[in-house]
Amino acid sequence: MKSLLVVAHGSRRAASNDEIRTLTRNLAARAGDDYVRVECAFLELAEPSIPDGLREAIAAGATEIVVLPYFLSAGRHVVTDIPEEVEKVRAESPDISITIAPYLGAAPALGDVLLDQAQAS
Amino acid sequence: MKSLLVVAHGSRRAASNDEIRTLTRNLAARAGDDYVRVECAFLELAEPSIPDGLREAIAAGATEIVVLPYFLSAGRHVVTDIPEEVEKVRAESPDISITIAPYLGAAPALGDVLLDQAQAS
Repeated sequence: MKSLLVVAHGSRRAASNDEIRTLTRNLAARAGDDYVRVECAFLELAEPSIPDGLREAIAAGATEIVVLPYFLSAGRHVVTDIPEEVEKVRAESPDISITIAPYLGAAPALGDVLLDQAQAS
Repeated sequence: MKSLLVVAHGSRRAASNDEIRTLTRNLAARAGDDYVRVECAFLELAEPSIPDGLREAIAAGATEIVVLPYFLSAGRHVVTDIPEEVEKVRAESPDISITIAPYLGAAPALGDVLLDQAQAS
């Protein structure tokens, strides 16, 4: 059972966290049969935390989880903080496969998305 | 003469700012004839500032500039700060058309990009 966990920074502004939750629901609708579960978690300032998001996926039956960093640059959060949070649950549940996907900012298709946004102005 | 200005937050980490500069060069290569000039500017912590980026585009002959917010959520930076910075140059150069495109996080295609990133893990 494969599960997807979108990981965002989290914000003091509730509307920003809700943007992530809406995006996650849209992803779940698009993902079709690829993932039985698509949820989000936050590095800080919002719930659930990354470990709790992973634990919930495992409790729901996930045996394979892809963590997807919703970040634009390869800063400390992407390079150090997210892997550290993931490691906590890997240590607890060594039989579960947890992989961290490349962060959003590294996506080759982002250039085309940006040019489309410019046209939409 | 149409010009594109990618606007990012800016970081104390030089590598993050360089990521934006690299992305901007890639955009310029993809944009073809749509824009005679594709450059970047930063809200804070890096150069050029948004007003300076706009002024440089105007000095280079731009008559129409699209500002493209490289941000994931519609927080204060997108809603208030970027429009305020743009307004400074609109006031100086009322004959130049400056429009602000929707921020990256609002792009409908972002869902597909995220699912592709998940597959790349």
